[in-house]
Amino acid sequence: MAYFSKHYHSPGTAPGTLVTIQKPVAPVSIQLIDYTESSVEEHRLVSARDCQPFLARETKTWIQVNGHTDPDTLRNFGQMFDLHDLALEDIINSGQRPKIELYDDQAFIIAVLPVYDGQNLELVQVSLFVGKNYLICFCPLAEDPFEPVRKRMRQPNNRRFADRGIDYLLYALMDFVIDAGFPVLEQFGGQLESLEEELLERPSQKTLSSLHELKRELLTLRRVLWPQRELITTLMRGEDELILAGTLVYFRDCYDHSIQIIELLESFRDMATSMLDIYLSSISQRTNETMRVLTIIATIFIPLTFLVGVYGMNFDNPGSPWSMPELRWYYGYPMVWGIMIMTVLGLVWFFKRRHWI
Amino acid sequence: MAYFSKHYHSPGTAPGTLVTIQKPVAPVSIQLIDYTESSVEEHRLVSARDCQPFLARETKTWIQVNGHTDPDTLRNFGQMFDLHDLALEDIINSGQRPKIELYDDQAFIIAVLPVYDGQNLELVQVSLFVGKNYLICFCPLAEDPFEPVRKRMRQPNNRRFADRGIDYLLYALMDFVIDAGFPVLEQFGGQLESLEEELLERPSQKTLSSLHELKRELLTLRRVLWPQRELITTLMRGEDELILAGTLVYFRDCYDHSIQIIELLESFRDMATSMLDIYLSSISQRTNETMRVLTIIATIFIPLTFLVGVYGMNFDNPGSPWSMPELRWYYGYPMVWGIMIMTVLGLVWFFKRRHWI
Amino acid sequence: MAYFSKHYHSPGTAPGTLVTIQKPVAPVSIQLIDYTESSVEEHRLVSARDCQPFLARETKTWIQVNGHTDPDTLRNFGQMFDLHDLALEDIINSGQRPKIELYDDQAFIIAVLPVYDGQNLELVQVSLFVGKNYLICFCPLAEDPFEPVRKRMRQPNNRRFADRGIDYLLYALMDFVIDAGFPVLEQFGGQLESLEEELLERPSQKTLSSLHELKRELLTLRRVLWPQRELITTLMRGEDELILAGTLVYFRDCYDHSIQIIELLESFRDMATSMLDIYLSSISQRTNETMRVLTIIATIFIPLTFLVGVYGMNFDNPGSPWSMPELRWYYGYPMVWGIMIMTVLGLVWFFKRRHWI
Amino acid sequence: MAYFSKHYHSPGTAPGTLVTIQKPVAPVSIQLIDYTESSVEEHRLVSARDCQPFLARETKTWIQVNGHTDPDTLRNFGQMFDLHDLALEDIINSGQRPKIELYDDQAFIIAVLPVYDGQNLELVQVSLFVGKNYLICFCPLAEDPFEPVRKRMRQPNNRRFADRGIDYLLYALMDFVIDAGFPVLEQFGGQLESLEEELLERPSQKTLSSLHELKRELLTLRRVLWPQRELITTLMRGEDELILAGTLVYFRDCYDHSIQIIELLESFRDMATSMLDIYLSSISQRTNETMRVLTIIATIFIPLTFLVGVYGMNFDNPGSPWSMPELRWYYGYPMVWGIMIMTVLGLVWFFKRRHWI
Amino acid sequence: MAYFSKHYHSPGTAPGTLVTIQKPVAPVSIQLIDYTESSVEEHRLVSARDCQPFLARETKTWIQVNGHTDPDTLRNFGQMFDLHDLALEDIINSGQRPKIELYDDQAFIIAVLPVYDGQNLELVQVSLFVGKNYLICFCPLAEDPFEPVRKRMRQPNNRRFADRGIDYLLYALMDFVIDAGFPVLEQFGGQLESLEEELLERPSQKTLSSLHELKRELLTLRRVLWPQRELITTLMRGEDELILAGTLVYFRDCYDHSIQIIELLESFRDMATSMLDIYLSSISQRTNETMRVLTIIATIFIPLTFLVGVYGMNFDNPGSPWSMPELRWYYGYPMVWGIMIMTVLGLVWFFKRRHWI
Repeated sequence: MAYFSKHYHSPGTAPGTLVTIQKPVAPVSIQLIDYTESSVEEHRLVSARDCQPFLARETKTWIQVNGHTDPDTLRNFGQMFDLHDLALEDIINSGQRPKIELYDDQAFIIAVLPVYDGQNLELVQVSLFVGKNYLICFCPLAEDPFEPVRKRMRQPNNRRFADRGIDYLLYALMDFVIDAGFPVLEQFGGQLESLEEELLERPSQKTLSSLHELKRELLTLRRVLWPQRELITTLMRGEDELILAGTLVYFRDCYDHSIQIIELLESFRDMATSMLDIYLSSISQRTNETMRVLTIIATIFIPLTFLVGVYGMNFDNPGSPWSMPELRWYYGYPMVWGIMIMTVLGLVWFFKRRHWI
Repeated sequence: MAYFSKHYHSPGTAPGTLVTIQKPVAPVSIQLIDYTESSVEEHRLVSARDCQPFLARETKTWIQVNGHTDPDTLRNFGQMFDLHDLALEDIINSGQRPKIELYDDQAFIIAVLPVYDGQNLELVQVSLFVGKNYLICFCPLAEDPFEPVRKRMRQPNNRRFADRGIDYLLYALMDFVIDAGFPVLEQFGGQLESLEEELLERPSQKTLSSLHELKRELLTLRRVLWPQRELITTLMRGEDELILAGTLVYFRDCYDHSIQIIELLESFRDMATSMLDIYLSSISQRTNETMRVLTIIATIFIPLTFLVGVYGMNFDNPGSPWSMPELRWYYGYPMVWGIMIMTVLGLVWFFKRRHWI
Repeated sequence: MAYFSKHYHSPGTAPGTLVTIQKPVAPVSIQLIDYTESSVEEHRLVSARDCQPFLARETKTWIQVNGHTDPDTLRNFGQMFDLHDLALEDIINSGQRPKIELYDDQAFIIAVLPVYDGQNLELVQVSLFVGKNYLICFCPLAEDPFEPVRKRMRQPNNRRFADRGIDYLLYALMDFVIDAGFPVLEQFGGQLESLEEELLERPSQKTLSSLHELKRELLTLRRVLWPQRELITTLMRGEDELILAGTLVYFRDCYDHSIQIIELLESFRDMATSMLDIYLSSISQRTNETMRVLTIIATIFIPLTFLVGVYGMNFDNPGSPWSMPELRWYYGYPMVWGIMIMTVLGLVWFFKRRHWI
Repeated sequence: MAYFSKHYHSPGTAPGTLVTIQKPVAPVSIQLIDYTESSVEEHRLVSARDCQPFLARETKTWIQVNGHTDPDTLRNFGQMFDLHDLALEDIINSGQRPKIELYDDQAFIIAVLPVYDGQNLELVQVSLFVGKNYLICFCPLAEDPFEPVRKRMRQPNNRRFADRGIDYLLYALMDFVIDAGFPVLEQFGGQLESLEEELLERPSQKTLSSLHELKRELLTLRRVLWPQRELITTLMRGEDELILAGTLVYFRDCYDHSIQIIELLESFRDMATSMLDIYLSSISQRTNETMRVLTIIATIFIPLTFLVGVYGMNFDNPGSPWSMPELRWYYGYPMVWGIMIMTVLGLVWFFKRRHWI
Repeated sequence: MAYFSKHYHSPGTAPGTLVTIQKPVAPVSIQLIDYTESSVEEHRLVSARDCQPFLARETKTWIQVNGHTDPDTLRNFGQMFDLHDLALEDIINSGQRPKIELYDDQAFIIAVLPVYDGQNLELVQVSLFVGKNYLICFCPLAEDPFEPVRKRMRQPNNRRFADRGIDYLLYALMDFVIDAGFPVLEQFGGQLESLEEELLERPSQKTLSSLHELKRELLTLRRVLWPQRELITTLMRGEDELILAGTLVYFRDCYDHSIQIIELLESFRDMATSMLDIYLSSISQRTNETMRVLTIIATIFIPLTFLVGVYGMNFDNPGSPWSMPELRWYYGYPMVWGIMIMTVLGLVWFFKRRHWI
């Protein structure tokens, strides 16, 4: 993951300029669900213009645009649903932070869906337009992530979507996006646990750089989770009459989840920081131990080596009584061993007293 | 304790889905206390339906549901007392953060009871529904933790429960849950103290990992204490007319306790961080001391070893006056000892001056 | 000082239970001052009941209860002055945080008087009830700390107490409690200064643990100073009509002092943290220096020792011209010394270039 | 970049004193664009007085003053447009923080344009006066940075500037200034990435000082970005009727960008701090490894050297059976080798067990 | 600078007690400027009583009291201008934090003038009383710091003081006090820069303690700058009608300066902290390098020394073919050299591969 992965137009570009910066990943595919209190109709559309007939009807319509939306398609949608230029620009320049923008009879919402495959954290920007009786959702993923929501809609005895307004659909999508944070954090939690084990048992520079990368991913995720929480607060405050009273309790639930996710993330960050301290102290600790082994060995043998060096000297003046007489003593050699053994015992006693061995 | 211990439905699950995720620990057991100004009746019920007769009466009723509440029992309670689906889901998905949810004529409160056995910190979710004249409390523990409250209720001369509304019962339970933090923190405090002693006297990597674990438990506890404090603030603000004026002073007392607990916890966290610094510095200090011993020994003996090495050389050209004449001097050997003793004395003086010995 | 020194009833105890937890330190002693615009009367009372006659009179009455107040005495005061059960419980369970509790015609204030003898910081809980024309103050110290206030009262030309209401007396006591922080912080400041000097000159593990203890005491003191500041803010806000306009300016002065004390404390904490960094870096610095001495000595002598070792070998094949011919050279021995001196000079030059010597 | 680069008059100087403190960089050059709904006129002016004719007309006028504005020019502008003395002083004393100052029928805005050439971060102060139908912009750069905006204006089919008020021009300039942060941060991000790679592969003190400098530049940039964000909030709050409702949505977009830039910057700062930790730990790690190599080599060879030293002693009393009899044993020499090989194997086993090799 | 330099009365002293605690530095000297729209009169007064005639006149009067104000002089001023006892006490107990106190027809302001001589930072308390048409300023410095303001007043064509109320004089003094922070910070910035250079080139424990002292002085300065900023905010809020609308824009300028100073100070503190990290890491780095030199030298020569030690042994059993036959080989000695050279080459290759040399 690059440090700077934000896409932006060069300063001075006119606002609302629609130019694709990212490489297209998947072709665009449009799905439409039109539902009333009694029926659910599904259509797979080829172009934006095909949505027109549904606009006139008094039904609730959910248009899901997956894959890479090219500027032309966007412009078509823009004209048909009267979408603001700046909003369209935000869809094409993905990497926006979650936000809500209120227009006269429309709300534009950007949410971020975290997707983690155990290696790379991808932050998928989901852009929603919510009008009186329609919801348009743009998602750059090739595969539709909201299939589970669609499944629930299709259940014949599920009256929730049927009985409530388009705001309940908005809730269902937002709830999906927020809850997608749980499995991601679960994976991060698992990684943290195995990193901790590694740190305590066989710490290496590699463990540290994994920890560092994990921290960076937590930081990246955090950057979208906080504004996402605010986004839901704004929705709940209901200054726009987007959310009806009956759906509010669902958004409160969704808000609780978003707080739980943030709290988990914050404690993971705390843990990662704490683990770095452990790593540092364990290195110091090991240096200290290595040091101690060296000191013990060196301190014991260096004096002994000196001593045997003494009697390796070649002073040899037969006429002098001072010329290494020890070498000619009867018990000279055992005496040297005696001195050496006593030296070792003394040093061992010294190290014991200092709790070094 | 695992880093990620949150239970959640997979994203996209319909809200209000009641599926047990946790393994059941203990069978469900329902206790009911029905009390008026003059009498206290106790019943041990087998099913949710048995509560029906008490609902009709003008008495105050406390229903305590202990152990593992299966989805069917929950649904029964839900139908009888008109409980919200999302609230029921929160009861089954334990690990929620403390919160209060206000419905039309009912409040739903989640509080967290900390239980610590000296080894593992368990955060038991206590879920309460408070209505006009009833209170239902769900607690997953096998044994009823609120027995002391029940005992006070049974005392014939205790007019407090009798004279006040159901809000006083709510206070009694909340007070119990909050005060349960004191013995937990007392144990943490004791552990901190013994860890500190260990750190100052015989620090080891094990002490550090205990400290790390303690910090993690403090962090976990903190994650529920702060929203619990907020929860009480919300109750005291009295937007819902749940708490009567006369009981307010008791909730203020309860609020004071919750702040005291948080302050204790925060200072414990400060202390734990401070102790880590001490640990690190004590390792550095010991490395420094080990280093010094090695340096003193090595610095004294290495030059001496060199010197005796010199006179261990075998230069042997009898015709040359430069071929190690010292070896044949009369006082050669004592002279070498003299040089060595002077070297040692010089080095000892040098180390003394540097305050190394 | 123990990490956990809070006194609490076991969870589930009825609120307002009066049971002494702490060991009694000194017997109770009650002093009463009854003063009007023209006279000051002093009485030493034996029991709570003796206060009754003064209650009826239109004079201002200050009742000071020093020492260990047993539950019976408290209950008597409670009945006579209509004190709330929870307030009485807070008096007996000392270790409360500063707070103000407003009852119908009475305010209950808990303040904390810091007492420091150079070794132990004691936080003495002072509990005050302020009514229309009386003030009752409970203080567990054997000796009355407020003697200086009483002295000012007795001065015949001091019209301040006489001319103003009971709120001026409250100010005088609160001011005393707050200002008591200055000498305590002065002592802490002195200790910090001597610790800093120690750290810069002869740092030891003992200095560090003193610093750690000082930080802990600062933390403990901080825990009461912040709510004490809030307490005065609450008093000044004057929601209750406790403080009259004329006395407000005095409370503002008192508030200023409380902020000054907090700021001093916070900068002391900053200093203590900063000193820890100095300690750590000074250890690293000394390790580095020790290391350097060792490296210089070892790097100079180890090659020399090798060299003399070479010529200490006993290769001795008289028939081989390769069998250590140097040993038999005319200038062999001076040549070795020459090589050694040049090696030393080279190494000295190398160390000089690296600024090691 | 110097730590203190702020220009200020000596304390006590009269407010509004216009004295150039900075060295002039480029001569002043004045450009004027006068535009209505149907036409765009461009003029290159020589002096402030030449603007007069345009003031009288009902057109929208943008006056761009580039390069070093001398006090006389400023005074002339001041008199013609009734600019406040303090505002003029702020233009000359560059290094101001972004702010907005509202006068009766004029707003004075200071924004900061970050310019980064890969080596030095320059913060260029852009000062704007916005009146009913004119905008004056002072920029000390020699070359006009706002050329891209002027280009958009000249496009014949671009109705945005024509249809909207002077507030849209203000938006276009502010948007340019804010968006200029993106390329700067992109460069910082690239530097961070290459520094990280360096740190993980071949860390050196130089890498660290580059990191330190980068942090300082991030800090410098941060000091202007936060007040710039506030500045836009103030504009959007619309207390002054400067921004019309239709342009508000554009300012909201601009606000979003300013938050994105701040968030990027804050995460870069986090990353830089985190990288310092990695650097420190990698040094410790390498010290530890160096230590280990030394300890292994020393611990293996020091005892061996002692042993061979023993048999290098010259004890030589032919009459004593204790005088190093091993030297005369038949298998003496292989025995020593045997002992030495066993010692090595034992030590290797010891190091393996400790995971040192 | 002492850690605790606050002057305070012993707890329990009556409020408003005027006793000099500090040692008098300079005798009191009173200057008076009386000015109207058309004239400026200057007087050098001997006592407080001499101000009386000016009080009666409808002119604006500035009384500047420099040097050590003794209690009697203060009491005289107090009686003549009806100053509050607590305010007088604050003047004598210097070391107060900046604040504003509003009395009925008077404001009492304490500001702090930082004075730095490159060695000691002195915080001079300036106390001002502002009434309807007079301003009294007490400053303990011997020399009047406000001479530049007085100079501007005397300029005959300077209509600012003449045309505006006493609030403009207050602004002039406050602006002087605030702007005095710039030269102080400039000096601190210079010191930081030279400390940084020292740290990167020749770090020593002395550099560190200078850095520590600088941090302490920044902390001390910070303690007065924050409340000073608040003080100006309070003045600008204009609850008291002290500041007229026309002067407000000047106070806003003053406020901007106070924020700039605080931001500079905060970034200096950040820098100082960052430099400590650099220092610590540079020590670690140097320890690491020292270590590496030692390890390389030791690792190369210790095995060689062992080898030459082997052939220094005296095994000498002529009858045994195992008794060091190498010593008698024809190419024995060159072979040993060969082994040694190969060992060195091998180790050099090993160190190269590890990037140690």
